[in-house]
Amino acid sequence: MTEKLSVVGKRVPRWRAHDKATGTAKFLADTKLPGMLEGKILFSPHAHAKILKIDTSKAEKLPGVEAVITWEDVPNKLFNPNKLDLILVHPELEFKDTYVLSEKARFVGDRIAAVAAVDAATAQEALELIEVEYEVLPAVFDPMEAMKPGAPKLHDFAENNISVHFDFPVAWGDAEAGFQEADIVVEETFRTAKNHICQFEPCTCMADFGADGRLRIWSPSQHAFLHRRKIAEIFDMPEGMIQWITPHVGGAFGKYGSLSIEPVCVALAKKAGRPIKLELSREEDLFATEPRQRYVSTGKIGLKKDGTITALQEKIIVDGGAYYTHNFSTTAVNMGGFLGLYRCPNVAAEATCVYSNVHPTGGVRGYGNHEGTCMLEQLVDKAADKLGMDPLDLRLKNAKKAGDPSSTGIPMETCSFEEMIKLGAEKIGWKEKRARKKEDGPKRYGIGIGIAMDVSGAQPFNIQHRNAFIKFNEDGSVNLLLNAADLGQNIIGAMAQIAAETLGLNYEDIHVVTGDTDSTLYDIGQHASGGCYQIGNAVINAAEKAKKQLLERAAKKLEAAPEDLEVREGHVYVISDPEKTISVGDVSREAMYNFEGEHLNISGQGSFSPVQNPPPLSAVFTEVEVDIETGEVKVLKILYVADPGRAINPATVEGQLEGAIAQSLGYVLTEEYVSNRETGALESDNLNTYKVPSTLDMPETEVVLYEEPVPSGPFGAKGIAQGAMIAVTPSIANAIYDAVGVFVTDMPATAERILEGLK
Amino acid sequence: MTEKLSVVGKRVPRWRAHDKATGTAKFLADTKLPGMLEGKILFSPHAHAKILKIDTSKAEKLPGVEAVITWEDVPNKLFNPNKLDLILVHPELEFKDTYVLSEKARFVGDRIAAVAAVDAATAQEALELIEVEYEVLPAVFDPMEAMKPGAPKLHDFAENNISVHFDFPVAWGDAEAGFQEADIVVEETFRTAKNHICQFEPCTCMADFGADGRLRIWSPSQHAFLHRRKIAEIFDMPEGMIQWITPHVGGAFGKYGSLSIEPVCVALAKKAGRPIKLELSREEDLFATEPRQRYVSTGKIGLKKDGTITALQEKIIVDGGAYYTHNFSTTAVNMGGFLGLYRCPNVAAEATCVYSNVHPTGGVRGYGNHEGTCMLEQLVDKAADKLGMDPLDLRLKNAKKAGDPSSTGIPMETCSFEEMIKLGAEKIGWKEKRARKKEDGPKRYGIGIGIAMDVSGAQPFNIQHRNAFIKFNEDGSVNLLLNAADLGQNIIGAMAQIAAETLGLNYEDIHVVTGDTDSTLYDIGQHASGGCYQIGNAVINAAEKAKKQLLERAAKKLEAAPEDLEVREGHVYVISDPEKTISVGDVSREAMYNFEGEHLNISGQGSFSPVQNPPPLSAVFTEVEVDIETGEVKVLKILYVADPGRAINPATVEGQLEGAIAQSLGYVLTEEYVSNRETGALESDNLNTYKVPSTLDMPETEVVLYEEPVPSGPFGAKGIAQGAMIAVTPSIANAIYDAVGVFVTDMPATAERILEGLK
Repeated sequence: MTEKLSVVGKRVPRWRAHDKATGTAKFLADTKLPGMLEGKILFSPHAHAKILKIDTSKAEKLPGVEAVITWEDVPNKLFNPNKLDLILVHPELEFKDTYVLSEKARFVGDRIAAVAAVDAATAQEALELIEVEYEVLPAVFDPMEAMKPGAPKLHDFAENNISVHFDFPVAWGDAEAGFQEADIVVEETFRTAKNHICQFEPCTCMADFGADGRLRIWSPSQHAFLHRRKIAEIFDMPEGMIQWITPHVGGAFGKYGSLSIEPVCVALAKKAGRPIKLELSREEDLFATEPRQRYVSTGKIGLKKDGTITALQEKIIVDGGAYYTHNFSTTAVNMGGFLGLYRCPNVAAEATCVYSNVHPTGGVRGYGNHEGTCMLEQLVDKAADKLGMDPLDLRLKNAKKAGDPSSTGIPMETCSFEEMIKLGAEKIGWKEKRARKKEDGPKRYGIGIGIAMDVSGAQPFNIQHRNAFIKFNEDGSVNLLLNAADLGQNIIGAMAQIAAETLGLNYEDIHVVTGDTDSTLYDIGQHASGGCYQIGNAVINAAEKAKKQLLERAAKKLEAAPEDLEVREGHVYVISDPEKTISVGDVSREAMYNFEGEHLNISGQGSFSPVQNPPPLSAVFTEVEVDIETGEVKVLKILYVADPGRAINPATVEGQLEGAIAQSLGYVLTEEYVSNRETGALESDNLNTYKVPSTLDMPETEVVLYEEPVPSGPFGAKGIAQGAMIAVTPSIANAIYDAVGVFVTDMPATAERILEGLK
Repeated sequence: MTEKLSVVGKRVPRWRAHDKATGTAKFLADTKLPGMLEGKILFSPHAHAKILKIDTSKAEKLPGVEAVITWEDVPNKLFNPNKLDLILVHPELEFKDTYVLSEKARFVGDRIAAVAAVDAATAQEALELIEVEYEVLPAVFDPMEAMKPGAPKLHDFAENNISVHFDFPVAWGDAEAGFQEADIVVEETFRTAKNHICQFEPCTCMADFGADGRLRIWSPSQHAFLHRRKIAEIFDMPEGMIQWITPHVGGAFGKYGSLSIEPVCVALAKKAGRPIKLELSREEDLFATEPRQRYVSTGKIGLKKDGTITALQEKIIVDGGAYYTHNFSTTAVNMGGFLGLYRCPNVAAEATCVYSNVHPTGGVRGYGNHEGTCMLEQLVDKAADKLGMDPLDLRLKNAKKAGDPSSTGIPMETCSFEEMIKLGAEKIGWKEKRARKKEDGPKRYGIGIGIAMDVSGAQPFNIQHRNAFIKFNEDGSVNLLLNAADLGQNIIGAMAQIAAETLGLNYEDIHVVTGDTDSTLYDIGQHASGGCYQIGNAVINAAEKAKKQLLERAAKKLEAAPEDLEVREGHVYVISDPEKTISVGDVSREAMYNFEGEHLNISGQGSFSPVQNPPPLSAVFTEVEVDIETGEVKVLKILYVADPGRAINPATVEGQLEGAIAQSLGYVLTEEYVSNRETGALESDNLNTYKVPSTLDMPETEVVLYEEPVPSGPFGAKGIAQGAMIAVTPSIANAIYDAVGVFVTDMPATAERILEGLK
């Protein structure tokens, strides 16, 4: 790239960093509306039960209680908490099977009733006064059991508890023929981890109906406009009668791609006629909000002796829990990742989504691709083993290149897997370390690799519609209006950098206004790593329109042609006569306060709907040490080579990658989200039993940004945040395999499982 | 008018009527920010004093006190709290003479120090612990005294306490020659009332600096953008670093054309590093916020025997109080009203603005025009008396007509004074009542008339720059974004009606988003009755642009030409085939959720800078009964004939006029804002001593809307709210004159003054 960039690519402070660092950033927990009540939800203690009778009279009489709601007080309407009303492929597979509150409990934690009271303690007390007569039903906790004839049935429509069976919608070639052609075939069944994201801020929501009937919802949603639409549908309101305010988000990672407690909060606000805050405890957040989708997945890879992959096939049992939510979409993405990462002429996949009486699942960072790619990458290492090839060479052999279709099927503008793998191999000393002595007393050394491609949004499978608006202030700064929740990925800061770069302003000159559906234009929201790429392009579009107005105005002042002007660091210069200059503030102020009546608030509205979907690429190298006596795995070092296209802010891109390393660490080694197989209750229901890695668990990490700007991206940027775990997880698993030959099929690979594998 | 209107002209509920009626509307007093402190201001007990020493140490040590500020903690920068940085004529006359906190007190109530504490009671307690050593200076309380050599001097620059002497900037003809030509000349000196608006909500403000240094201010300003700019100037910040949020406004009437306590609140927030709320008590609001400008004004009118006015002249002493504020601008408007109401070939005016140690004044409803016109209208009646003419005929003789310049000098598009006067005269039975028996025991009957023209904004004297933005929701409703404070005039509701009418939607389909400088485009704010006319035009401009997008989109769906479409009540119809129709919601939703990638959030940005300034016209007829034994005046009936061009919402226009009648009643009869002539302290410092009329004091009222749509107005509308008192006040004074021959020159015309006049 020869383009000179002033703001993009700089390590500027992330948006609102100072507020968060100093603790002055206000989250919903800090917020209190005048007249606000606090709510609590009564969760089912039974995995499967019918409510025969529910008596709320004692609870209602408790002083301080303002409203109690049960299934009789909420709309008799099924919905799917999944955000995706955007889906273009198989929209019929987005089942609606959930009520706001139900008369039937399908898992331990299902929502039975809710109370609003003057404070949370009173609401909690009232919960205990609600008398529920349950008919406890037989329950089933495993998808294999659930599919058996005679198993307890969760939903009437789902025979054998199968909600749907589907084939990968866009398969190609002939998988059977491909396996025939292969010299070797490797096939394994994996059971992925149902881990929970454990975001810092437990799920919190506020809702309030105005006297005019308009509903205001405060919730850290990733999809304010889509969730507004969903609430409108559930409560039979026009969308325009709802204002959705997205406050600071204390972590989301895909979780807030689903509606969570908002419908209950809205129903309480409606009944109470007062503002309500509903805040889950850590324990409640763990058992009552969606963990990652779990798959029981059989992967099969066929290869020629020279390593050429001839066929890929995946058969997935989706352990979907009690409700459907994202079953279809995460699984389709899983298939895309598994089948699309490498060059392969013959692919096929199928999935069976199964209900059982365990906690329902949703989309979490990686959204299926994480599990699909991880399985593939482990199969590749096993195949390399069989072929006697270096797994690195096997990857190079089959790696895709620019022009090949990505996992979405769209041909890639750029793709430098080969260069990235080679660069990483050199940096970590792959050849030497692969060949080095493994043993050191009870310790065994291993090194592994994983690669991945993710997406920059959900084109062409989902509607992807983005808008941004820019207006100038008197001082030459601009307000950038958009609806993008900063989930921790610093999307807001990146958008400010993109706006500043396009407009020729400084980073500090961009004031981002976001988080309110009333004042911002439509946006599909934050998912599939699409924010930077897609909204970034909308921001450029808006900025260019505003800049045109700015330059036309400046041209008059400078007596020059607009084409002969450029803007740098807040000043407009005449290119052919750089002595002639005017500050952007002077242009903007004069346009607002013009004494000849030629008034203009310089502004621009921009939109974007993608055609491309450039995949961010990852190649990750991990070194581990496994203690064969204890089974303990210690990750020594992780080297992450990533191609984000362009790192708009390298510091926050690196932060994303480092955060993902921590999350993969938890996923592979410690985080067990376990429902008791007798009762269905969550066993790992707090942070003592559900073990999230801390900073002390972090290995040495090295992040290398291999930036290959993509032509369709804003200053070359692609997505990066969502996909960042995908290559890390298999690289750890493969390093363990290299160290001790234990092929990890059940995540997490706890010490117990390693020891068992070693036997 | 043959145009068919569906929403404009309808008596729909005013914006947020339900919230206010049910008490659920939240005002600043209801609002509490996390970590918020409450502030109190220490006001000077002396009319004129120098602070020799101020010791805040004891106050600072009081538990709960977080910050104490004095003049040493605030910017050493003079400002003028008046909004008008827009002025095109004599901008050099906008003196800056005020500090945020001063080391010199110039009136009883001047701001000396302020405290922020955990609650208002603690802050109040702390005030009492601030030890101030004053050097009490000699004070002067009357402008005539203040101009005398040797009088105590308030501001160094102002010799003889005269801030400025100026002539009417746009006089015409030769006044002296005009008076020579006249057959009779009437000259009188008036002393107008310095009344206080006593809005429901005492002045309240909140301020908070974010960790990023950005300042947020909540204040019921009429000029969010202009006041933002002023705060930026005082505190040396770029405008873009300030967000101004305008909450519900509990009454403004021009008062919030000035900055009031915001600078103190900001200074406290800066010192404390915490959010601050500052809320005045009713007493504080009365003595520490601006009442109406007071004039000692000599008016002179020359007429031919046939009643033709030959000359008008005005000499004004502006009793400006301790600070300059609006001295120039209200006075210039006063002159405009006095000189411009009637056809007159020769006019001149001059003014001397004088400081004294009484409470400073500002702009209140009518903004000078009220006082100027009132004087003129009383002089006209006295002249009629002298000429032996019916004052109604004298008015008809000199009344302006369409094409004549209005009081702003701009030729009028419409002007039907003649018709309005005749209509009112007929309705009230002028001829009969003028001639009827006056006496009934001690009671004397009188009937009077007053006419007035006001403005629809401040064109051509001030910059008048308006913007609006419209975006569609999925349901076919729209959000209308603008920055207009609803001061009680229902500007928001009127804008929603205008948007609905233009777009072909229902009133309920318009959701107005306002009150935040961050998300709305620039707007000069609410003054000079310019809102409806000016912003209304910006709204039409925005709506037309959005409608164009809507129709283009609908045309594709309906397979028709956009020109062949019309929108009514939320549906698009093919004009040539009315069976073909689609709802606006379907068009809007499909544009957002388009499966071919042709996405559009239908929207439009509109602007307006006026060329015209159509004056709303008033003709008011008042009947009174004066008790010559007690001097008491009872207003029997008021008939108000008003031309608002087009009443966008007749109910709220009538409400404006009725409210103005009540205010004029208080102005003429009861409201005395009196500073003690020994101490300078306000005597009428609460609602027991400062007597605002109640509903029980209201006379019979009749409002007749004489709607003559003005071509340049939005659906023909002009301004109406500000000018609504102007004709009422003189009509009452003239009725008193008719009843008992007492020519009221000192307002208010209390029973004592009437009795004195009768002697």
